[in-house]
Amino acid sequence: MDPRIREHAQVIVTHSVDLRPGDNVVIDAHPVAEDLVVALHEVIGDVGANPITTSKRTGKRQHRAFLRAAGAAVDAVEDLAFDTPAHELALIENTDVYIAIRAGDNATETSDVDPEISSAYSNAYRPIQDERLSKRWCLTQYPAPANAQLAELSREGYENFVWDAVNKDWDAVREFQQAMVEILDPADEVRIKSGDTTDVTMSVAGNHTLNDYGERNLPGGEVFTAPVRDSVEGEVLFDLPLYHQGREITDAHLEFEDGEVVSHSAAKNEAVLTEVLEADEGARRLGELGIGMNRDIDQFTYNMLFDEKMGDTVHMAVGRAYDDTVGEENETNDSAVHVDMIVDMSEDSFIEVDGEVVQRDGTFVFEDE
Amino acid sequence: MDPRIREHAQVIVTHSVDLRPGDNVVIDAHPVAEDLVVALHEVIGDVGANPITTSKRTGKRQHRAFLRAAGAAVDAVEDLAFDTPAHELALIENTDVYIAIRAGDNATETSDVDPEISSAYSNAYRPIQDERLSKRWCLTQYPAPANAQLAELSREGYENFVWDAVNKDWDAVREFQQAMVEILDPADEVRIKSGDTTDVTMSVAGNHTLNDYGERNLPGGEVFTAPVRDSVEGEVLFDLPLYHQGREITDAHLEFEDGEVVSHSAAKNEAVLTEVLEADEGARRLGELGIGMNRDIDQFTYNMLFDEKMGDTVHMAVGRAYDDTVGEENETNDSAVHVDMIVDMSEDSFIEVDGEVVQRDGTFVFEDE
Repeated sequence: MDPRIREHAQVIVTHSVDLRPGDNVVIDAHPVAEDLVVALHEVIGDVGANPITTSKRTGKRQHRAFLRAAGAAVDAVEDLAFDTPAHELALIENTDVYIAIRAGDNATETSDVDPEISSAYSNAYRPIQDERLSKRWCLTQYPAPANAQLAELSREGYENFVWDAVNKDWDAVREFQQAMVEILDPADEVRIKSGDTTDVTMSVAGNHTLNDYGERNLPGGEVFTAPVRDSVEGEVLFDLPLYHQGREITDAHLEFEDGEVVSHSAAKNEAVLTEVLEADEGARRLGELGIGMNRDIDQFTYNMLFDEKMGDTVHMAVGRAYDDTVGEENETNDSAVHVDMIVDMSEDSFIEVDGEVVQRDGTFVFEDE
Repeated sequence: MDPRIREHAQVIVTHSVDLRPGDNVVIDAHPVAEDLVVALHEVIGDVGANPITTSKRTGKRQHRAFLRAAGAAVDAVEDLAFDTPAHELALIENTDVYIAIRAGDNATETSDVDPEISSAYSNAYRPIQDERLSKRWCLTQYPAPANAQLAELSREGYENFVWDAVNKDWDAVREFQQAMVEILDPADEVRIKSGDTTDVTMSVAGNHTLNDYGERNLPGGEVFTAPVRDSVEGEVLFDLPLYHQGREITDAHLEFEDGEVVSHSAAKNEAVLTEVLEADEGARRLGELGIGMNRDIDQFTYNMLFDEKMGDTVHMAVGRAYDDTVGEENETNDSAVHVDMIVDMSEDSFIEVDGEVVQRDGTFVFEDE
């Protein structure tokens, strides 16, 4: 086994989920990630915790078969009445730690499932999803061949990419990123400027800035907060592509007035972007501002778990804000969607906080000699 | 997908476990059995039940890693204190149907786990095992390459073997076997005679004969009861081999007096047979007499799920009797072990019930023209 797999397992268990003796653990993984699952079992056995492996989240082929058969069994999608699976809910309720490993053998396996059927199932499944998020949890990636293909890399190239991003000294990362937290957390106004296409300002006054150093997301590597709901003004060109429900949107361009998107366009799949923005009221407002700071993520791989943490980028999400980023005095933007979009800040760009430039062309002030 | 896989899934769901809308289902399967798991999800989606797939029972490589690490973490095996995993117990408690698919990629994967560690884990795991057995459950086989290897067959040959044995008209099987149940259930004395090496008599008076037609075991194909505990007299040469904890025992020979084994021998691994018989008091007495009646199982494949149902054989198990085969007036033989051993009855053999021959050289009286 590649020693980096055992290192990855150690990082998950000792850093990300802080495993303790007697913990009940659920690992959700596709068989392509078997080596990492085995390495996790070694560490879990050593700690004295109790593992079980499921494939509910990652077994896309079986889930596709289930959803299509359920859809075919009714006359109309509206007739579908999925239960919340009580046995799975009981499993998660009695679990202390939930580890989800992203990896599969076909990234487009569910491409022929009617989105309305998926959505009906997601609604029934929501209590399980919520229960998982109430545990110590970690979402990580195993570099399987199909994932390398999605990233447009060789298998070895993608292995190097994933394990460089994951197997890090996360205490050092926390410390480095904390400098940015200390700038952003007490700040009032943030301005993001990049070339002639992006110039946007927003208030973050009263909201909280969090430091993501590889706990719930592995890799971590971002500092993030929520914009004050009505404060966003200006325009942004998201010059890195994004994937929404399997469809690529390029050069998404948004214009904001009083916090709301008043016009939008995209070079590719503009209709998909329109669909996102029209999901509900909150989908036209920002729920997140994030600063990507993991410089070991040095290329775009069509995988938001990595892309949003890429060094020298910022990302903004339309839709739902995370509760723990919103201050008591402020209103939380609520929405069924949360779609991250990324701006490259490595050239001809700056971030200004309360009138002072804190990053220019990807270099932070606290890095200057 | 081979159409016989979908047929297999249909047999499991509609015949073996009688799946109903809203049932919560746990499937335990190794990834090599993925096609059958997918086919099961199609049928489960169609019925409107709720599936989850785990690999607790079948994920031998991860379980080996866990057990060895747990063993290495303590000074002595006696210090091991495994918990009963509360989350897994909660999962099974809230489950209606449990489907276990035998299949793997290496039949000897756990060969380097200290049996004392396995045994300590099994003890902690017992409540989960008991809970599973209280559900509607089915144990079946998928013909993966490593299983074909164990059976000493080609992959295609083993596929034919498994699906011929499994995809049958089980109502017709039930009816055929019922003739034997009706002979054995009211009987007092049974005599099994084969060549010069096997001549054993036992009472089955007051005990119950059950008809196994592919419900909890798929394939099914046997009729079985329990001998009255002290009644077994004579000798048996089990001329088909058996595997116990990965070790093959050939030509096991047992001599009985007053129901108890008074002498034993084996051509290969006699010490393993001795170990079985010395496990406890009940291990030296018979807990089961079974008549194999599935003639589609026409060869020995080192897999008791099939071997004990082979047409033209009988099997006897030393150790634990099944509760539902023992009448109220009789004592149930209790033991930690239940080890099945098989006698070939196809030549120079007969089964006599209350003085009348009911099977000669493999042909039952109710088959005679």
